[in-house]
Amino acid sequence: MLVNGKPGNLIGIRDRGLLYGDGVFRTLRAIRGKAQHWPLHYQKLLHDCTALGIACPDVGPLSAELDGLLARHPDGVLKLIVTRGAGTRGYAPQHCANITHFWDIFPLPEYPFDWAIHGIKAQRCQLRLSQQPRLAGIKHLNRLENVLAAAEWNDARLLDAEIAEGLLLDTDDNVIEGTRSNLFVVSEGELITPELSRSGVAGVQRDRVIDWSIKHNMPLQIRNVGLEEVLHADELFVVNSIIGLWPIRELEQRHWINFPVAMQIRQAWAEEFAS
Amino acid sequence: MLVNGKPGNLIGIRDRGLLYGDGVFRTLRAIRGKAQHWPLHYQKLLHDCTALGIACPDVGPLSAELDGLLARHPDGVLKLIVTRGAGTRGYAPQHCANITHFWDIFPLPEYPFDWAIHGIKAQRCQLRLSQQPRLAGIKHLNRLENVLAAAEWNDARLLDAEIAEGLLLDTDDNVIEGTRSNLFVVSEGELITPELSRSGVAGVQRDRVIDWSIKHNMPLQIRNVGLEEVLHADELFVVNSIIGLWPIRELEQRHWINFPVAMQIRQAWAEEFAS
Repeated sequence: MLVNGKPGNLIGIRDRGLLYGDGVFRTLRAIRGKAQHWPLHYQKLLHDCTALGIACPDVGPLSAELDGLLARHPDGVLKLIVTRGAGTRGYAPQHCANITHFWDIFPLPEYPFDWAIHGIKAQRCQLRLSQQPRLAGIKHLNRLENVLAAAEWNDARLLDAEIAEGLLLDTDDNVIEGTRSNLFVVSEGELITPELSRSGVAGVQRDRVIDWSIKHNMPLQIRNVGLEEVLHADELFVVNSIIGLWPIRELEQRHWINFPVAMQIRQAWAEEFAS
Repeated sequence: MLVNGKPGNLIGIRDRGLLYGDGVFRTLRAIRGKAQHWPLHYQKLLHDCTALGIACPDVGPLSAELDGLLARHPDGVLKLIVTRGAGTRGYAPQHCANITHFWDIFPLPEYPFDWAIHGIKAQRCQLRLSQQPRLAGIKHLNRLENVLAAAEWNDARLLDAEIAEGLLLDTDDNVIEGTRSNLFVVSEGELITPELSRSGVAGVQRDRVIDWSIKHNMPLQIRNVGLEEVLHADELFVVNSIIGLWPIRELEQRHWINFPVAMQIRQAWAEEFAS
């Protein structure tokens, strides 16, 4: 672990990341000494910092820190957090000149390989996402909604070990995302993904699917998506930087068996990785 | 400063308070070795912890820590934070057995005394609060909306030193609260305060005003309040544990000069404090 470039695993209790969730983060997958899609992650980091008025650390020093970490931990999950740092007491973000940034590293979670091929069971979360255009799309540290949503199927009393992800709707009945992933719908030869201008996090893998659709001339729409449309889809899949891509085989009463488009994207990504 | 009962000012970077804003807080005023309304604050802490499924520290040990702090710092602002602590990676809050709690202390901010008597200038914030019934009322650590709202009039380019508080509306045009205070409206002999079932923080001083209204047989309504109603009020005032009570003398084009109800409450609180 690195805190502001130095080995450490502690930060000050006056850090605004802790006091207010005043910061942003990235989660990257390291494979054989390489952080997957680091340039795309840095772009997102820069975008999110800018949106909150946080001075994003320069890419050069961050990349150097990352290289140092990868040399010692070639495989796993890397987490990078940037906060507005410590300032005077109170919400106003002015006069915070000491941006904090730190890296943490975790072993790669061991998900059943079957989930990537035959799909996962997903459930609809009861919690509805609130709508805040000023924060939508940003991977910021205010994540209590995700915590409450993830608690729904991880609750020991309701334990359903088969459920791998929960889908979140907003207060207007739009399906937005998974608790830790972005959602894609395949319907009549088109890809559709929820637009994220009021809720949700726009992840790197979402951009990569969009990029794939352009390169393969597959029509793609970014727009509001309702639950009925999701349940009537030809295919559903979720993506994030750690899981990659998981098709959904079960949601509510609906089951899916074949995922031709999802498998085509997985294949393209696997070839890209091998090349 | 105390971290889990011991002197310190650092916490681990895996604490969920930092990673997700997964925790709650209280801000208390210490005067001459006494923390004002500590029992009311503890009740709120317990309520908020329970709402998030966090095991609230017992009142006995917390009170003992507080007494120790007050012996050394008899006057100032005390901040108490309780987080779900560190757990395994991921949003699910299960298996987090190590609740973290810590105290910090700050000097009392020096506000012009005039603000308490002749009122403050307030402004309407551009940011609209999102609506999340599961988090409404709770003083949790997801406070980016407050940060963005406070930035509006603390921005150096727009600096208006006179503005002391910003009023926040929700996405349905309801007036909810100040960025760090609760709002009361006096209209035709009645007290009105916004209901907080979808947005906002229900503070200790809000409860104390409600309590005052009951004891003094003054009708009080807790309901949706629109901006027009606020601008046509006979009096407006905001309350929190550090400022106490501030009348509003200026908001948008409207000015107020007399605050008989606000002054009556201030007087009652002063007598209560002296007794």
